[in-house]
Amino acid sequence: MITSRFSSSRGIRAGARLAAYNFFTSRSAHSPSFATVDAEEISGSRPAEVKNLVQGNWKASDCWNTIVDPLNGEPFIRVAEVPEAEIEPFIESLSNCPKYGLHNPLRAPERYLMYGDISAKAANMLAQPEISNFFTRLIQRVSPKSYKQALAEVQVTQKFFENFSGDQVRFLARSFTIPGNHLGQQSQGLRWPYGPVAIITPFNFPLEIPVLQLMGALYMGNKPVLKVDSKVSIVMEQMLLLLHQCGLPMEDVDFINSDGITMNKLLLKAKPQMTLFTGSSRVAERLATDLKGRVKLEDAGFDWKILGPDVQEVEYVAWVCDQDAYACSGQKCSAQSILFMHENWASSGLTSRMADLAGRRKLEDLTIGPVLTVTTESMLEHTAKLLEIPGSKLLFGGESLSNHSIPTIYGAMKPTAVFIPIHEMLKDNYFELVTKEIFGPFQIVTSYKQDQLSMVLEACERMHAHLTAAVVSNDPLFLQARFLLCLIYFLNIRKCSGSQ
Amino acid sequence: MITSRFSSSRGIRAGARLAAYNFFTSRSAHSPSFATVDAEEISGSRPAEVKNLVQGNWKASDCWNTIVDPLNGEPFIRVAEVPEAEIEPFIESLSNCPKYGLHNPLRAPERYLMYGDISAKAANMLAQPEISNFFTRLIQRVSPKSYKQALAEVQVTQKFFENFSGDQVRFLARSFTIPGNHLGQQSQGLRWPYGPVAIITPFNFPLEIPVLQLMGALYMGNKPVLKVDSKVSIVMEQMLLLLHQCGLPMEDVDFINSDGITMNKLLLKAKPQMTLFTGSSRVAERLATDLKGRVKLEDAGFDWKILGPDVQEVEYVAWVCDQDAYACSGQKCSAQSILFMHENWASSGLTSRMADLAGRRKLEDLTIGPVLTVTTESMLEHTAKLLEIPGSKLLFGGESLSNHSIPTIYGAMKPTAVFIPIHEMLKDNYFELVTKEIFGPFQIVTSYKQDQLSMVLEACERMHAHLTAAVVSNDPLFLQARFLLCLIYFLNIRKCSGSQ
Amino acid sequence: MITSRFSSSRGIRAGARLAAYNFFTSRSAHSPSFATVDAEEISGSRPAEVKNLVQGNWKASDCWNTIVDPLNGEPFIRVAEVPEAEIEPFIESLSNCPKYGLHNPLRAPERYLMYGDISAKAANMLAQPEISNFFTRLIQRVSPKSYKQALAEVQVTQKFFENFSGDQVRFLARSFTIPGNHLGQQSQGLRWPYGPVAIITPFNFPLEIPVLQLMGALYMGNKPVLKVDSKVSIVMEQMLLLLHQCGLPMEDVDFINSDGITMNKLLLKAKPQMTLFTGSSRVAERLATDLKGRVKLEDAGFDWKILGPDVQEVEYVAWVCDQDAYACSGQKCSAQSILFMHENWASSGLTSRMADLAGRRKLEDLTIGPVLTVTTESMLEHTAKLLEIPGSKLLFGGESLSNHSIPTIYGAMKPTAVFIPIHEMLKDNYFELVTKEIFGPFQIVTSYKQDQLSMVLEACERMHAHLTAAVVSNDPLFLQARFLLCLIYFLNIRKCSGSQ
Amino acid sequence: MITSRFSSSRGIRAGARLAAYNFFTSRSAHSPSFATVDAEEISGSRPAEVKNLVQGNWKASDCWNTIVDPLNGEPFIRVAEVPEAEIEPFIESLSNCPKYGLHNPLRAPERYLMYGDISAKAANMLAQPEISNFFTRLIQRVSPKSYKQALAEVQVTQKFFENFSGDQVRFLARSFTIPGNHLGQQSQGLRWPYGPVAIITPFNFPLEIPVLQLMGALYMGNKPVLKVDSKVSIVMEQMLLLLHQCGLPMEDVDFINSDGITMNKLLLKAKPQMTLFTGSSRVAERLATDLKGRVKLEDAGFDWKILGPDVQEVEYVAWVCDQDAYACSGQKCSAQSILFMHENWASSGLTSRMADLAGRRKLEDLTIGPVLTVTTESMLEHTAKLLEIPGSKLLFGGESLSNHSIPTIYGAMKPTAVFIPIHEMLKDNYFELVTKEIFGPFQIVTSYKQDQLSMVLEACERMHAHLTAAVVSNDPLFLQARFLLCLIYFLNIRKCSGSQ
Repeated sequence: MITSRFSSSRGIRAGARLAAYNFFTSRSAHSPSFATVDAEEISGSRPAEVKNLVQGNWKASDCWNTIVDPLNGEPFIRVAEVPEAEIEPFIESLSNCPKYGLHNPLRAPERYLMYGDISAKAANMLAQPEISNFFTRLIQRVSPKSYKQALAEVQVTQKFFENFSGDQVRFLARSFTIPGNHLGQQSQGLRWPYGPVAIITPFNFPLEIPVLQLMGALYMGNKPVLKVDSKVSIVMEQMLLLLHQCGLPMEDVDFINSDGITMNKLLLKAKPQMTLFTGSSRVAERLATDLKGRVKLEDAGFDWKILGPDVQEVEYVAWVCDQDAYACSGQKCSAQSILFMHENWASSGLTSRMADLAGRRKLEDLTIGPVLTVTTESMLEHTAKLLEIPGSKLLFGGESLSNHSIPTIYGAMKPTAVFIPIHEMLKDNYFELVTKEIFGPFQIVTSYKQDQLSMVLEACERMHAHLTAAVVSNDPLFLQARFLLCLIYFLNIRKCSGSQ
Repeated sequence: MITSRFSSSRGIRAGARLAAYNFFTSRSAHSPSFATVDAEEISGSRPAEVKNLVQGNWKASDCWNTIVDPLNGEPFIRVAEVPEAEIEPFIESLSNCPKYGLHNPLRAPERYLMYGDISAKAANMLAQPEISNFFTRLIQRVSPKSYKQALAEVQVTQKFFENFSGDQVRFLARSFTIPGNHLGQQSQGLRWPYGPVAIITPFNFPLEIPVLQLMGALYMGNKPVLKVDSKVSIVMEQMLLLLHQCGLPMEDVDFINSDGITMNKLLLKAKPQMTLFTGSSRVAERLATDLKGRVKLEDAGFDWKILGPDVQEVEYVAWVCDQDAYACSGQKCSAQSILFMHENWASSGLTSRMADLAGRRKLEDLTIGPVLTVTTESMLEHTAKLLEIPGSKLLFGGESLSNHSIPTIYGAMKPTAVFIPIHEMLKDNYFELVTKEIFGPFQIVTSYKQDQLSMVLEACERMHAHLTAAVVSNDPLFLQARFLLCLIYFLNIRKCSGSQ
Repeated sequence: MITSRFSSSRGIRAGARLAAYNFFTSRSAHSPSFATVDAEEISGSRPAEVKNLVQGNWKASDCWNTIVDPLNGEPFIRVAEVPEAEIEPFIESLSNCPKYGLHNPLRAPERYLMYGDISAKAANMLAQPEISNFFTRLIQRVSPKSYKQALAEVQVTQKFFENFSGDQVRFLARSFTIPGNHLGQQSQGLRWPYGPVAIITPFNFPLEIPVLQLMGALYMGNKPVLKVDSKVSIVMEQMLLLLHQCGLPMEDVDFINSDGITMNKLLLKAKPQMTLFTGSSRVAERLATDLKGRVKLEDAGFDWKILGPDVQEVEYVAWVCDQDAYACSGQKCSAQSILFMHENWASSGLTSRMADLAGRRKLEDLTIGPVLTVTTESMLEHTAKLLEIPGSKLLFGGESLSNHSIPTIYGAMKPTAVFIPIHEMLKDNYFELVTKEIFGPFQIVTSYKQDQLSMVLEACERMHAHLTAAVVSNDPLFLQARFLLCLIYFLNIRKCSGSQ
Repeated sequence: MITSRFSSSRGIRAGARLAAYNFFTSRSAHSPSFATVDAEEISGSRPAEVKNLVQGNWKASDCWNTIVDPLNGEPFIRVAEVPEAEIEPFIESLSNCPKYGLHNPLRAPERYLMYGDISAKAANMLAQPEISNFFTRLIQRVSPKSYKQALAEVQVTQKFFENFSGDQVRFLARSFTIPGNHLGQQSQGLRWPYGPVAIITPFNFPLEIPVLQLMGALYMGNKPVLKVDSKVSIVMEQMLLLLHQCGLPMEDVDFINSDGITMNKLLLKAKPQMTLFTGSSRVAERLATDLKGRVKLEDAGFDWKILGPDVQEVEYVAWVCDQDAYACSGQKCSAQSILFMHENWASSGLTSRMADLAGRRKLEDLTIGPVLTVTTESMLEHTAKLLEIPGSKLLFGGESLSNHSIPTIYGAMKPTAVFIPIHEMLKDNYFELVTKEIFGPFQIVTSYKQDQLSMVLEACERMHAHLTAAVVSNDPLFLQARFLLCLIYFLNIRKCSGSQ
């Protein structure tokens, strides 16, 4: 029985490794060889357990955090959370990594090749249908979205590993040299790691975001401690098991589950050279203060799309708008938050076509599903406030899902669109309300006349955060692009120069 | 008389330009055509005045800050400081710059060429001996250092302008495109500006640091407000006049003199998309908090040099150590703060050779001079505390300069070196004291035995900030390297993708 | 008198330099300080003389080649041609350059900075109106084209020098390093010169082509011997004098005037590591054979432009077509040779508008002028043959210029356009005739129906050489682009790897 | 029986594919699924057959070329050679590829992804031990070298495929854009294919050289016809079968076996846009002439190694010298041809250590083996001539192998080293003889005194071709480096610019 898989695990000693871990586990016949859970069978009666990894050892804890199934509220995952009193091994582990990292262009270069190898093997494993299906279903269980959307996450991750196969990791560590002023002098630029780093990732992409950021950090020689939102951390726990099977050294990554206060303590004590945080701007600002600038933030935003005067392909545009606003129940960092339509679109039937498409979304196939960070109540309240604005109207949605068992701590809302007149939206007393980001299936629609284009521009200018803009197509390259970002975060060109 | 040059300038209207500015100025015959001061003649009796530039207009203020001559304490420069009540035009000016900048790869591309042209002209002007001498002397007056050191700053700046002549600015804005998944799709990376930005620079390199950071920002289409430490801001005021003569549009840069509190207010209200701060870590941390992460910090550090077991070229090494520790009176961000000598160097006469070289430094040619941020008293106090450590000894220096008229608000200290045994240094109660950064002509010397190498590494690991390390030669490329950094700060790759 | 300027120069010894050179010269008061001729005053009665440069010395010869003024046939330039018997010094000079060049990333790096300096100075000189005018007029005298066209050549050259000012030359020599398989191993890529090289350039761009190719070769450490078409080599002779004044070492470039047979001998004996040839394909093929592949060829071609079905901006398109076909009297490598119009353009008046514009071109301002490699007779003959094709017609031109004194060895033809039906053009017995390149003011025009698009593509596919295609605008960046090509020719990445 | 595998294959129609191919084949149980031969069992009694591939079909021929087993002279492979009368389909196939290639950044971009996919799959297959062993053994059968050397070739190829997995092929096609002079104008650089190309490769690396060059060409959108030396072409025939199984479209590559005269005809008629030739300089020169410069040559060379005055690690240096001179029986393009020893090495015992190592090489494990392009007789003759030079002496070797059945058309020579005094070597009548390249287990050794260093440099300067130099270690990265070269050959930056 799965629930007992760690029952005797407290006895595992520091030296114990993956083999031991699997030994105490009664893995389902349907799961891949590395896995300790069966994605299909996790349930209230057969709950899964998630552990922590530090200094090369998987460890349980006395402190269990229970995660409820977002679809029915049953407690279905128990996460071993590290209490503040037990963070010492994590601090020690990070502190043991020197500032020049686990490898760099001058030290342990064979590790670049090792990571090329790990990537090739991981790509190969993720390309196998049963493993791909395992992660797709596991993602669906904890971060409900359609099979297609969850699969896309696995595929982007698989492609990422292919991209860093063979020599490609060491090609990242390419340094350069420029002739100096006189014989024997030159200027050199080396790709240098930060050394100890921390990565904190959110719930909405449980596999893609942590894998891309983690591997980017590892490739360059950093030693990361990884914290994924506990609601979904089971996905990365299983991924780490896969990576260990592909050759990832047990000590290269630490993996922690904890509450925010404990994690903050850890960061303040272990003083990682860099922290990469993806998540809410509230936490981000606190981190920026606490870590005195040694932090990179990837925030979400209130993203906009503008439709110009040329009305064309209404069917296709409606489909794209529907996808951009409501796929993953609106819980993508790049989700469409506001749509500016030129008046020419008014008679095109675009909004009624969008209403049709939104109407087809249903809980059964998770094309609409639980909202993990906003409750139904607060979404209804926000809708009500918006509808008090003069000239506003509800285009569609605006009510909670029916016939569901989504727990009340999560949101359950029909895909919703509220129309707000552009001149009202720009008023000082409404602007903040209208452009408040709702991380759920919710969008504002407005329209503008030819001579109101400047109002559109003013609105865009005033919205402070926006990750994407005017992306008209549902672009499969977009997510891929993100991998470059996370590499850039962990590349650090340090220029030295001297006689040789 | 120079002091009256702005006497009627309050009447200058918004439309007034450089011509008008010069009109009210009685420029010395020895100064370049653009200049409003004579570097040689600024004095207590003929004080210079520094103005502010906003929305294309040079403006005085009712609020004058008086700067004293660091060599004799005479009030010799009056800086028009913008009080909090008058920051509105600066806020408005920044806010008027859209988030997509003054230019970008899709907008106003002719401005890239214009900046290539401005750079070529500025390079050409700075290459003229009388202009080069003007800035060298002006730097010496406000940030005392030897003629050679001040000239090096002008030359690095001149070379920087050459490097961005012609098409080189637009080459910086090179974007890339990668084929997409199917016909009509592609992924594009564009170099995008931040839009409105702020740059805050310190006193120690009054020309090089602000010019390199300012031009990097301008090249990419940003609109900067620049604040230079008031003690030395006259240098950049004159440089801006040169740049305007080379074609820099009057509205492209705002230039402000103010106290820190006012500047902080400005940043909080104008909300620049990015702030680049070079200076003390105390202020840096405050900014990181206030600006919620929208800040890049270039700090200084406690820099170290390690001499290995192979003793060679003692004469040359001594010279390099002397330069690295005491040039610019130790007020370079890259100044040597601690020297680890292998025991083999003990009998080589290195430290006595260093003492000789330090002894040759004299106030007359500014090879030693005023310390602008640490008083003599606090340096003497620090020395005394260090000498209480068991086994410590004063190698040379340790007393204030004699026969000088440096005002007491500044430091006046002989080049100083204190020896500390390595095993004492590593003790918890001494480590922080020993590795405290003194931004002046001050260094720690220690030695290690063959079997103490791990202590050296531990010490380096524990020192948190270090900008340079183990630079054995006095490298003229080093400063140049900095220009890459400031460009990187203002380059911002934003990936978009979509059908075309 | 200018003709005597070298009368006693045979006595100049190896050590003699520019100073001596100028000493024996009676330069016009209107010429720049480095120049030995006055662009305005060269004439039959005051002929100029062009010398050769080898091993640091300017040398005359007993063998003078007389160039006639292309506008009136007067012998106005005497070129000292090196006979076969006297090529030994050129062979020796090339052979003395080692295969690792005059500099490379490991040797004499200060020369990279020297070339950055030379470029900055040359850019600055060429930016001065009197020098810019001097070269513009000199180009017009030997390769007749409008002032604007000749000036453009000078400006492109000036910008090129700006682009390689300061550190930009050494940035070209940037090498890279990739971590190896184990400690102490790495793979390095170095930019390596060829060593001795030869450059042979044509008559149509007497300044731009040789300067860009020459400087590209020099920047990377090669030692070039340069041969420019004798008809125009006076321009580069004067340019070399300017470069020497900017600091170019006398021995870095050899400059030779000779006939093709002698040059061929020189190449076979001196065996340069690479020869860069720009010119006729007949000579190119011979060189490819003789030099056994050690040659890079930049040929011209039969360039095409296609107008699609959307008729718009007829006025502008007509102007662009006129410029592309007839500027420089059609003697640009990128000149338009054939225009494919969609049938929709038939009624737009495009061809009659083109006829108007062609009609405005006149000999007085050199908007039309002598053709240096095709006689009037052979152009008339070609026109006649084309007009025998069924359905063909003369659109405009088709006759020789009137009232001119262009010598008969050159061509003097009105801007000409011949219409050929597309289905006739594609016939095997006509295709070669129609697509024969005429390096003069001559173009083919054809039109296609919507269902004949495949014929257009077939035609383009069958034309073997085409340097440009479908360039709709008169693009000032185009010529600039060429500089990249010539650099690429002289960059040579050699990969080495080994333990360090 | 394998010999009959193609007996009825002439009936295969154009539409037939891999499946059909395998159908007519009685494949050994020990071979991989794609293979049509068993590497172990090819023999005089069970000869293998090699076919041609054109327009998507594998074809036999009436004209069989018999290859003898290099170890015993038995006819063991029959190669279907295309006679001149049957080259039409090859010409047609090449001609059907447009000049803009099978794909380019603007056309069929999904093919870049397809090639990333093919590469990932091929990498994965080659990583499987049975497939890796299959190719290693097949290489050994036709180009005898030790198992380790043959395996290295397979591994380099496998790594190459890993490097171009996922998105890496499309990253190669990255284009760039630079802002233009005014709104709407920009300058773009696109990676453009050549279109139809030819690749001709030699016998010594039957897998690595053709795969790297072929894939480089395919990645960029070219359509290649590949000709491998018939003696070893069976290896690439089998590799093409593997690639087809990984998804390579049947029509993308043509594969031809023919004699040189026929291949020359094919090139002259089909006029590929580029031909990449690796092989003897005699053939190379002929191609350069015939193809009028449209050819890239990768020649071998007389490679040198210089040992400096510091004698150290004699054992290791001896081992490296032995590997560099005699691995693959000296038939690497990078094989060491001459060794310059500083006089200090004389007493180190280096040469006697080299003699020991050479003595251990034996035919049984192919550490020494047949020489495919030089007969025993001519190597003995060359040795004899060298030994006539005054002061020369035989260090070791110098006689034919004993107890072997290598056919007389191949060479069978013991590892040989001949000492030549440096001052004799430089004499005009000896220099050419001494530096004649022998593509076999043969090297010259010489020594120099401290004051003879200039003689060493002179010698290196006079040797015209040298692919490698001074590589002191047996570097696994070196071969890898070659892949960059072949990509560079098929990348072609074409700059266009215009309004968009």
